[in-house]
Amino acid sequence: MENEYYSQENHGPYSMYELGDFSLESGETLPNCQLAYASFGELNEDKTNAVVFTVMFSGTNKAMESYIGEGKALDPAKYFIIVPNQIGSGLSTSPHNAPAPHNGADFPDISIGDDVRAQHQLLTEKFGVKSIELVLGWSMGAQQTYEWCVRYPDMVKRAAPIGGTARTTPHDSLFVDVFSETLKSDPDWDGGRYTDAHGVALGLKRMAHVFALMGNCTEFYRQKKWEALGIDSLENYLTGFWEAWFKPMDPNNLLCMASKWKRGDVGAFSGKSLEDTLAAIKAKVFVIAFTNDMFIPLCDCQAEQQMIPNSELKEVPTLAGHFGMLGILEGDFDQINGYLGELLTTQ
Amino acid sequence: MENEYYSQENHGPYSMYELGDFSLESGETLPNCQLAYASFGELNEDKTNAVVFTVMFSGTNKAMESYIGEGKALDPAKYFIIVPNQIGSGLSTSPHNAPAPHNGADFPDISIGDDVRAQHQLLTEKFGVKSIELVLGWSMGAQQTYEWCVRYPDMVKRAAPIGGTARTTPHDSLFVDVFSETLKSDPDWDGGRYTDAHGVALGLKRMAHVFALMGNCTEFYRQKKWEALGIDSLENYLTGFWEAWFKPMDPNNLLCMASKWKRGDVGAFSGKSLEDTLAAIKAKVFVIAFTNDMFIPLCDCQAEQQMIPNSELKEVPTLAGHFGMLGILEGDFDQINGYLGELLTTQ
Repeated sequence: MENEYYSQENHGPYSMYELGDFSLESGETLPNCQLAYASFGELNEDKTNAVVFTVMFSGTNKAMESYIGEGKALDPAKYFIIVPNQIGSGLSTSPHNAPAPHNGADFPDISIGDDVRAQHQLLTEKFGVKSIELVLGWSMGAQQTYEWCVRYPDMVKRAAPIGGTARTTPHDSLFVDVFSETLKSDPDWDGGRYTDAHGVALGLKRMAHVFALMGNCTEFYRQKKWEALGIDSLENYLTGFWEAWFKPMDPNNLLCMASKWKRGDVGAFSGKSLEDTLAAIKAKVFVIAFTNDMFIPLCDCQAEQQMIPNSELKEVPTLAGHFGMLGILEGDFDQINGYLGELLTTQ
Repeated sequence: MENEYYSQENHGPYSMYELGDFSLESGETLPNCQLAYASFGELNEDKTNAVVFTVMFSGTNKAMESYIGEGKALDPAKYFIIVPNQIGSGLSTSPHNAPAPHNGADFPDISIGDDVRAQHQLLTEKFGVKSIELVLGWSMGAQQTYEWCVRYPDMVKRAAPIGGTARTTPHDSLFVDVFSETLKSDPDWDGGRYTDAHGVALGLKRMAHVFALMGNCTEFYRQKKWEALGIDSLENYLTGFWEAWFKPMDPNNLLCMASKWKRGDVGAFSGKSLEDTLAAIKAKVFVIAFTNDMFIPLCDCQAEQQMIPNSELKEVPTLAGHFGMLGILEGDFDQINGYLGELLTTQ
């Protein structure tokens, strides 16, 4: 199904890596699976300067690029930074672009583990990387970051899961159910067999409003912090920011990612308890959490951080809540960038 | 439209007070408007022992009765306690029981001010009350409590708004929009002209899940606090508690209340700023707020409390969040009951 939103023009430049027929944890195979990724900087001769920056729900590499640049912690002059897009995200092989019989509502279940195995294949087979300086990511990116630490403990030197968990909490799981059901409430949803993604606009709009409700804290709303985006009213914040974000996307792509999010659990790979799984992490970890995060409250991040041997909790005091990562409010970017810089200087 | 849920059997005993043709703030008139109320204890000879206990969204007098009884702060041996049901709540005149042409989707807009004027009429005209010892209420009950303080400053000696605001915050307004839209997303909603309220079960279920998402904090979920209700799983908590609560109700009744909630603003009566309106309150006020309340965070309650001259902020430290009022968790009832007892002893 064509969707002009998912394009080099909007999200590039990005490259495609052929994973081949990719075996999923579900037991299914995704034929000719493609992993879209952006990269910044050059891999050094020793192949010791790689950074993996994973991507959140509904995002692409483009959404994370503001953290990458000269003078920033993620400086392409020093690091070879790879930003791999999730399977199902729209740029990599996804419900909207997969050929039948794996297209649309018939796209197979993907897991966070599948994404991380695909990324590992890219890093090792294409680039020959054996050690990673830093794996990081926000929200679903944090899920992937934890998965990297657990699955490849000897490869990940440092990790920064930001506003996300190693195992999805019951409340977070309920949140995913609520916004997924809201999306599917569209009269033209048709069990995912809609003929036009843009025809599911009402479901996308309702889902956008649930994200708005949980995405920023009440104080953000009381202080009309949307003004920091040059937006002048709550109504325009809803339409011009939240609805505008989700509206061009494909619902089956979103639900593919949502399903991964809901089932996120590092214990699925280790077969052990969360405590024992996190206790085995070898990386130096900064667990970065946002004050007033209504998706993933600081206490949830902290509970996991305390199970990781070589770790520190780093708080980002922001009214933006979960969406503090977008750097909308003064100071948020600097705080996160500062933590990343600090982490990269540790041995 | 018949609905056996709204009955003396389920919510009684309650009495009906005839308001007559009741003039609404919208300019419309609700003919033969009835106010359902429960009462406890006896009005003393001086008519100086009245307490008004207002009711929350979707609730009836029955929902508040656990706070009333011998040995509790609200002791019927000492106080004449009136629990008036909201107009539109199902027991008082409401969309589901009003005769045409004011029935269902054609029920007029009601305001918090309309409710409080109706309650004032009951107190003064039927009972001859001139002074009220305490007005209290939770959530939408807090909205009514504030309205009482502002509208009848010389009549209200003490007030306890619990987990609610004098003016609906932008975030809270968004919450009302989200759950209202979720309810209306039912395929059989038909603009409120459904033929069977129970046919809107999918919308009611979706709305119940939004309430579950916002009603308790994440830590409540992580610690499986539904076990305090004798419920053994998240799934059964959703079906047996949240869905079971909303399922028997009439959607137009709920939306009548939701619309009041969204427009709640004590400044609508005073015509002044929130600061000036709250500064004019004469009652001794305990603003009672719940830790981890995701509907009405403590900071929102505190911001208003600081505008009220003779007031104190009282925190209820509970994992139940907004629904701490239901006394599900050990200690919540005692804490709230204790604050009410303390307030009633002040002069």
